Amino acid sequence: MNPLVSDRNVDFLLHDVLDATALTALPAFAHHDRGTFDGFLREARRIAREVLFPAYRALDEAPPRLVAGEVLVHPELERLLAPMIELGVLTASRPEAVGGASLPMTVATLAHVYLMAGNLSAYGYLGLTTGAGHLIEAFGSEEVKGLFLERLYSGDWTGTMALTEPHAGSSLADVKTTATPAGDGTYRVKGDKTFISAGDHDMRDNIVHLTLARIEGAPAGIKGVSLFAIPKRRVGAEGALVANDVTITGLIHKIGWRGLPSVTLAFGDKGDCHGWLVGAPHRGISYMFQMMNEARLMVGLNGVATASVAYHAALDYARTRAQGRPASAKDPSAPQVPILQHPDVRRMLLRQKAIVEGGLALVAFAARYGDLAQHAVDASARERSQLLLDLLTPIAKTFPAERGFEANALALQVHGGYGYSSEYLPESWLRDQKLNSIHEGTTGIQGLDLLGRKVVARGGEPLRLLREEVARTAERVEAASVPGGPAVLEALDGIIVLTMQLGAKGAAGDVDGMLLHSADYLEALSIVVVAWVWLEQAAVAAKLDNADPFYRGKVACAAYWLETELPRVAPLVALCASGADSHVRIPDEAF
Amino acid sequence: MNPLVSDRNVDFLLHDVLDATALTALPAFAHHDRGTFDGFLREARRIAREVLFPAYRALDEAPPRLVAGEVLVHPELERLLAPMIELGVLTASRPEAVGGASLPMTVATLAHVYLMAGNLSAYGYLGLTTGAGHLIEAFGSEEVKGLFLERLYSGDWTGTMALTEPHAGSSLADVKTTATPAGDGTYRVKGDKTFISAGDHDMRDNIVHLTLARIEGAPAGIKGVSLFAIPKRRVGAEGALVANDVTITGLIHKIGWRGLPSVTLAFGDKGDCHGWLVGAPHRGISYMFQMMNEARLMVGLNGVATASVAYHAALDYARTRAQGRPASAKDPSAPQVPILQHPDVRRMLLRQKAIVEGGLALVAFAARYGDLAQHAVDASARERSQLLLDLLTPIAKTFPAERGFEANALALQVHGGYGYSSEYLPESWLRDQKLNSIHEGTTGIQGLDLLGRKVVARGGEPLRLLREEVARTAERVEAASVPGGPAVLEALDGIIVLTMQLGAKGAAGDVDGMLLHSADYLEALSIVVVAWVWLEQAAVAAKLDNADPFYRGKVACAAYWLETELPRVAPLVALCASGADSHVRIPDEAF
Repeated sequence: MNPLVSDRNVDFLLHDVLDATALTALPAFAHHDRGTFDGFLREARRIAREVLFPAYRALDEAPPRLVAGEVLVHPELERLLAPMIELGVLTASRPEAVGGASLPMTVATLAHVYLMAGNLSAYGYLGLTTGAGHLIEAFGSEEVKGLFLERLYSGDWTGTMALTEPHAGSSLADVKTTATPAGDGTYRVKGDKTFISAGDHDMRDNIVHLTLARIEGAPAGIKGVSLFAIPKRRVGAEGALVANDVTITGLIHKIGWRGLPSVTLAFGDKGDCHGWLVGAPHRGISYMFQMMNEARLMVGLNGVATASVAYHAALDYARTRAQGRPASAKDPSAPQVPILQHPDVRRMLLRQKAIVEGGLALVAFAARYGDLAQHAVDASARERSQLLLDLLTPIAKTFPAERGFEANALALQVHGGYGYSSEYLPESWLRDQKLNSIHEGTTGIQGLDLLGRKVVARGGEPLRLLREEVARTAERVEAASVPGGPAVLEALDGIIVLTMQLGAKGAAGDVDGMLLHSADYLEALSIVVVAWVWLEQAAVAAKLDNADPFYRGKVACAAYWLETELPRVAPLVALCASGADSHVRIPDEAF
Repeated sequence: MNPLVSDRNVDFLLHDVLDATALTALPAFAHHDRGTFDGFLREARRIAREVLFPAYRALDEAPPRLVAGEVLVHPELERLLAPMIELGVLTASRPEAVGGASLPMTVATLAHVYLMAGNLSAYGYLGLTTGAGHLIEAFGSEEVKGLFLERLYSGDWTGTMALTEPHAGSSLADVKTTATPAGDGTYRVKGDKTFISAGDHDMRDNIVHLTLARIEGAPAGIKGVSLFAIPKRRVGAEGALVANDVTITGLIHKIGWRGLPSVTLAFGDKGDCHGWLVGAPHRGISYMFQMMNEARLMVGLNGVATASVAYHAALDYARTRAQGRPASAKDPSAPQVPILQHPDVRRMLLRQKAIVEGGLALVAFAARYGDLAQHAVDASARERSQLLLDLLTPIAKTFPAERGFEANALALQVHGGYGYSSEYLPESWLRDQKLNSIHEGTTGIQGLDLLGRKVVARGGEPLRLLREEVARTAERVEAASVPGGPAVLEALDGIIVLTMQLGAKGAAGDVDGMLLHSADYLEALSIVVVAWVWLEQAAVAAKLDNADPFYRGKVACAAYWLETELPRVAPLVALCASGADSHVRIPDEAF
């Protein structure tokens, strides 16, 4: 049975590395203790393994269908959502005032990763619903909250994020959907949206679309976009739900996440689509971004989860599949050995482990900064954590997506020819993973966000704070007699110098030149950040028990990352600094 | 309309870079001229674009079915094979004595890449049939040739390579299928095979399986394996074809190449499977390897083709899809620009171009060495070319497979959310590509082959020859005022020094230590070899016409590869030299 995610590793991260119980010293988490954390985790594991994962293949094999204008999802799905809702997934880290458990995000993250690894589509409905609810909780008027919040947080209704329009994928500045004041406080919305995940299904009688639209007369561009809540059905004059003129115009045939429909939809074809403004007019993008940052961490966590479940499948296969003999022992009459004994298979598995456990630590670190950013008692601690969280977000979104895809491909490769068949599951996780480099801001956009905004915020304060954190880790690893601290610091310092050079270029007006290698910059900083979280794990592990294979594995895997990935940083930094512009200079006709 | 492969680039490679017409000075090609080369190419292009590619999606959507013990393939397929057979694909580079056109492999390679890009499954039947025929042509007795060769080379029957057995995927030493002399010169064969591509179909009345089996009493291991021709149906007493006790026991649900069935089959369930020995007993592996090397180049070419067709789709999408504005020009009322204008999209496209056109040059260079190895007048020229071909084969197989997969993922990424749907084709090419790192020897096996055999052959002679070739290119680029020659030579010299160190380690008995980083070694040498073929293209382009965007593109793309990839070589060499062994040292239980 695939464990989906390693319990030992999650417990190690939660308690030994991140000391989650220390969070209970903060007032927001004072009602919790290690027991409540472990209880939540235990139940998430059980649901993931006993309920969600057994249904994974069925959902992949029978995707949703669009029948008579409504999306019909797999009949198993409803049964999968129920125990997660009962566990409190929708409001795990929301405050008690709105019915939540006020659980640290650190804990929720390390529990939800099991649910995603077990069945990312089933979890997807709830992740989207939480996001929609959180937007309304944070910015909605009392009226809007009254209409929607409790229904979303209870799971009676589900939610979506309806941002994308067909003509303007990533370019939210070009949103054309219009909203016209109806005089009664609501708006009439008209426009087309696409790639709306969970945009329709037959499991609930209502869906609330958190939608970007432009109020008549709004300024052009990003500063004229407002946020609306648009239900599939509204409460009619008789008090019953009536259709709100939201039409499903198409179903996209996604190559993964096949339990979760992605639809195109039209608001207001008949001029009767009612929308409720959320927050102030023209502030939609800033509201959405607040949520998008949470969504990006969720994408990163999904990337980890999807790589993790495949890694464990590959590991199990490598332990049990006998084939060939060591290069140095070619007696053909000797029995074949499990392929785990072949060095290149070990390399592929250790690489997956480095990506999976490094990625999980990265997202968990980010979640912990999120907890402190919101709930630390000291304002300066909150600010510091927020800056670190902001800095880490594009990395925590992208690293698991891009390297997770690499890990998923390796998991397939370990299975050899069997991996190339749909009789085995690695190919389906490979398909699932590919979405993570696209949705919630493509990898290209994350690079621009990191270099163009995050690292240059507050005169470069985020990287200075990161350096303090890494320096502290370097001291810890030195104390634990683990090598690598100085090398990671040196790599980070190279990136800091580079950032100042690029920032100066941008400040001098050459924004294009500054951003020329944003993808490589993101890659370089990601390698260093993951080296840091691996060092931190190695430092803790080395102090615990040198005879325990689990801890020895942590030290070996940290060493692997430093040996194979850290040397890539200096060439990437040199490339970013070089101004090499062959990709821009090449004539369009020459492609 | 997708061009599948760039004509301009193929003409440039064939005539300007490789000077194919010069091959007509060799007796074997004396009856050819530029006109016959171009004619073959023209017809291959036409078939690929007008016949093969239009049927690609239909084959992907309706894979073969196993019905009543027989595999039924897509009804369109037969119509696709006919014009390729008529063109002479099956015997293009075979001598006239067996009905071939004696076309240089250089030319056949650059023509066949279109057919593969248009429809890899349809081409697959013929590639396998050629391979089977070539084995019989090279090693079969007159009797065996008389039974099978003409039927295969005419396309009346198709062929397969039946190597793999369920218990021993890559480990051919563990083949268990048995062959018992029947006293009449034939053998009775018994055993199970798996992953047999084109192992059954309903398009022809016979299929000839070139099969590895063990004659009773043969030595254990690789030196006891013989090669047999085993037809699906044999000529019976009445002169008609009768069943030869070959049973289709299963159909593997491959995730790509979905027009080409992969089956499991059983020989001799009823004790009545007749096999004909090909060549001498116990020599099967060496025969098979002679063909496998051709097959590996074919896999490399397929990797290029599959990346190429996707690259051209992505390029077309990027030219026509308007979205967003340059970072430096954010006037929201300005029209959106084609995404080709975004630097990161250009980076993704240039990277694909570098992989596709670098990969194609690599395979074409290898094919030219193949032509010279077989047909050069001078024996020392033949030997030199053979050593270079042997050296390049694992690289030409793996680079297009691994980096082609990266290119295919980028082609999907350029399409954004649409790329994640099966409404667009990039996802299908991504699935197709993944097989190339697995079949005909996995990437791991290619690394072992390169480092454990190829580079250390003849006391390191192959790398010395490669260095001469690269040095000649370096002179040419210097004469053309293109930079980069010294850097590529320096990187190669680093690998040569490393090779001597590792070879010494192996010679001292530490084979495991020598091969510890064979995957990284393969990666490093691949980067350098592709840098070399890019430099060669840049040198030729720079001399032709500096104002022509095509030639400027060649120079820019060479620069791109040298800027982004060459700096990765030194860290990889250092890793290989370091003896870092975290992946071997880590305890099994620690994964």
